[in-house]
Amino acid sequence: MKPYAEMTKEELLTELMALRKEYLHFQEMELHLDMSRGKPCREQLDISMGMMDALYSTADLSSEDGTDVRNYGVLTGIPEAKRLIGAMMENNPKNIIIYGNSSLNVMYDTVARAFTHGIMGNVPWGKLKKVKFLCPVPGYDRHFAITEYFGIEMINVPMSPTGPDMDMVEELVASDENIKGIWCVPKYSNPQGYSYSDETVRRFARLKPAASDFRIFWDNAYGIHHLYDDRQDVLIEILEECRRAGNPDLVYKFSSTSKITFPGSGIAALATSLNNLEDINNQLKIQTIGHDKVNQLRHVRFFKNIEGMREHMKRHAAVIRPKFEMLEDTFKEELGDLGIGEWTEPMGGYFMSFETLPGCAKAVVDKVKKGGVVMTGAGATYPYKKDPNDSNIRIAPTYPPLEDLRTAAKLFTLCVKIVSAEKYLEG
Amino acid sequence: MKPYAEMTKEELLTELMALRKEYLHFQEMELHLDMSRGKPCREQLDISMGMMDALYSTADLSSEDGTDVRNYGVLTGIPEAKRLIGAMMENNPKNIIIYGNSSLNVMYDTVARAFTHGIMGNVPWGKLKKVKFLCPVPGYDRHFAITEYFGIEMINVPMSPTGPDMDMVEELVASDENIKGIWCVPKYSNPQGYSYSDETVRRFARLKPAASDFRIFWDNAYGIHHLYDDRQDVLIEILEECRRAGNPDLVYKFSSTSKITFPGSGIAALATSLNNLEDINNQLKIQTIGHDKVNQLRHVRFFKNIEGMREHMKRHAAVIRPKFEMLEDTFKEELGDLGIGEWTEPMGGYFMSFETLPGCAKAVVDKVKKGGVVMTGAGATYPYKKDPNDSNIRIAPTYPPLEDLRTAAKLFTLCVKIVSAEKYLEG
Repeated sequence: MKPYAEMTKEELLTELMALRKEYLHFQEMELHLDMSRGKPCREQLDISMGMMDALYSTADLSSEDGTDVRNYGVLTGIPEAKRLIGAMMENNPKNIIIYGNSSLNVMYDTVARAFTHGIMGNVPWGKLKKVKFLCPVPGYDRHFAITEYFGIEMINVPMSPTGPDMDMVEELVASDENIKGIWCVPKYSNPQGYSYSDETVRRFARLKPAASDFRIFWDNAYGIHHLYDDRQDVLIEILEECRRAGNPDLVYKFSSTSKITFPGSGIAALATSLNNLEDINNQLKIQTIGHDKVNQLRHVRFFKNIEGMREHMKRHAAVIRPKFEMLEDTFKEELGDLGIGEWTEPMGGYFMSFETLPGCAKAVVDKVKKGGVVMTGAGATYPYKKDPNDSNIRIAPTYPPLEDLRTAAKLFTLCVKIVSAEKYLEG
Repeated sequence: MKPYAEMTKEELLTELMALRKEYLHFQEMELHLDMSRGKPCREQLDISMGMMDALYSTADLSSEDGTDVRNYGVLTGIPEAKRLIGAMMENNPKNIIIYGNSSLNVMYDTVARAFTHGIMGNVPWGKLKKVKFLCPVPGYDRHFAITEYFGIEMINVPMSPTGPDMDMVEELVASDENIKGIWCVPKYSNPQGYSYSDETVRRFARLKPAASDFRIFWDNAYGIHHLYDDRQDVLIEILEECRRAGNPDLVYKFSSTSKITFPGSGIAALATSLNNLEDINNQLKIQTIGHDKVNQLRHVRFFKNIEGMREHMKRHAAVIRPKFEMLEDTFKEELGDLGIGEWTEPMGGYFMSFETLPGCAKAVVDKVKKGGVVMTGAGATYPYKKDPNDSNIRIAPTYPPLEDLRTAAKLFTLCVKIVSAEKYLEG
């Protein structure tokens, strides 16, 4: 079929009639599918059930340094957990704090601490007239929700397959001391699945921020979440690169096992310089006596080491790869020549990003919803939920069973076609 | 032996010579005992080892409403956990949020939220020139550390066996709108083991604070932590009493299973009015996707219900009651007639409180430490670590084995005698 842009009005009308008829069929199916969030599916969760037997009532619950993990104490994590998560994050265990179950919570608390007490002796952000964050877009809605909640002004920075527009980042960060941070998902980004190029990481490490309390919020959520064994993105490790560049304190790096073991019952971590760690620990020791060490030990006993974790992630990949590939095949088949949509084909992570014609995303998501499938709301990938082009849609393939996802993909591409045809006819 | 105050100088000197000789014996023993914190002992932790088998790899990890507890979601806790913790806290499950592993963390976050975003539409505390908290003394050092960290001015309020001086509390709270909160450990208080009388609780519920965002921080840490089966303190439930008094939003009530199952691996909770819950949830949903539901389910499967929890607590009591009783016996035997110290004899909780002669607490703790036993630092039970009388010492009997504790008790009473005798001789 030829591109919609090249069709005559009559051809488009004929096409639209056929599409609408097809849409009616979907409505008659009374679907109730939810693909709004990046949740693992049941089969993925089953992979980690061995976690439940990793500790048992006759096991010795001592950490390798003799600490009884059942009792109080150990603010920053048991040594073997730091070593395992260090290997996962590619950081020295001494640069790591092991937290509770949620890296989002760690990010929130990091912003909150900067707000109430400032970073390394700087004025608390709450005392400043204006605080701004750079937000590569499209990006992760929960990041933007944190900065919005704190009244931080968010500035969009366009993403490309190699990362954020670094010319823009460098210029803004160097010229405006109100800019205190940037949200990054450097590897298999949410929602595109892009990974930052070597040049991008190097330029990040060499930023010259006007604000001495500017920090890169480096959310390494998908560090080992590859879809393929033979094709994987590899990034320069940011903490080391910052050190090499003479900017050792520039970055907070976050990660967790939420999408490795159990969402909500994993362990989260932060890696950063020793200066930043000291600053953080001065607050952390007021906030808590320590995080869940039993769960830390459970993770270590289950995985044993990073090799165990990597093998484990291959099993995840085997479950979700077919879902990504089916979507890509369906999109190609249904939309390939029509010139009405573009999508990313990531090698890892949890999402794909879809670009409709300008002004069509909201209408597509609405139409898909009326067909019985809930997707992430259009606009959610932008600060303040405002997509200036109304064109980006986040696709979360992992949760629904493959067959449901196939149905949803057909419905989705159908809706893209209908909305696009209507758009051309209006235009 | 007669009271030191009635001894002649010669008698005191003779006594002191004998005491110092005895102290040398202790120093020769080269003790290394730590009774500084209120930690459960190993035998107590062993009681909960069944927790490790409560979930297993072939178990169904669904909550009673069908939620897969392994996955994301459920911000405020699974229903059966709310019911169990509700029964433990004597609150309706609908008034409860189940959090992560640490009620201290919940308290910190509660203050932090008030600081950055205010309580129910009020001005954020961080925007005010002055914020004050009332602190019943002696009290819990980690409470005071939170308010100190946020630059909140702390005002001492004397404690009695029936609770804080309520005349003072009522007057201060009604007259000063900068007073935004009060720290309370209402049952088996830290460090005295006092429980608030019915009158005290009723007066708390009927406070008329000048500040509409004044809240009682009701840390119900020891709600079911009785030492005796036949003698237990029973309190009026504060949330219900506030409702009856027409002050439904006046209180945040905190609790956890830290000293029921495993410190650091329990579940914490907050109980409060629906208005407060709504206010809190507006922030909580930004901070996290949810807490550890697997651990919530683990607790429910292990205890089954509140009766299971109460039986469990009897086993704790059987381990620690002899420690409290031995201390009381030793204190009575060694210090009974001397008029140089007073101590509390609680029926529950984790601590005893000891009052030396004025100006002696620091010297006693120092001398005990040089004898090889670390106690909670003198002053720690007061805001800013400043005990105006230098007379209060917190005693934490639970952690050391009974025989070690016996040695420590002998050393402690010896040091009280030495320091007191020296005090009288100086005077």
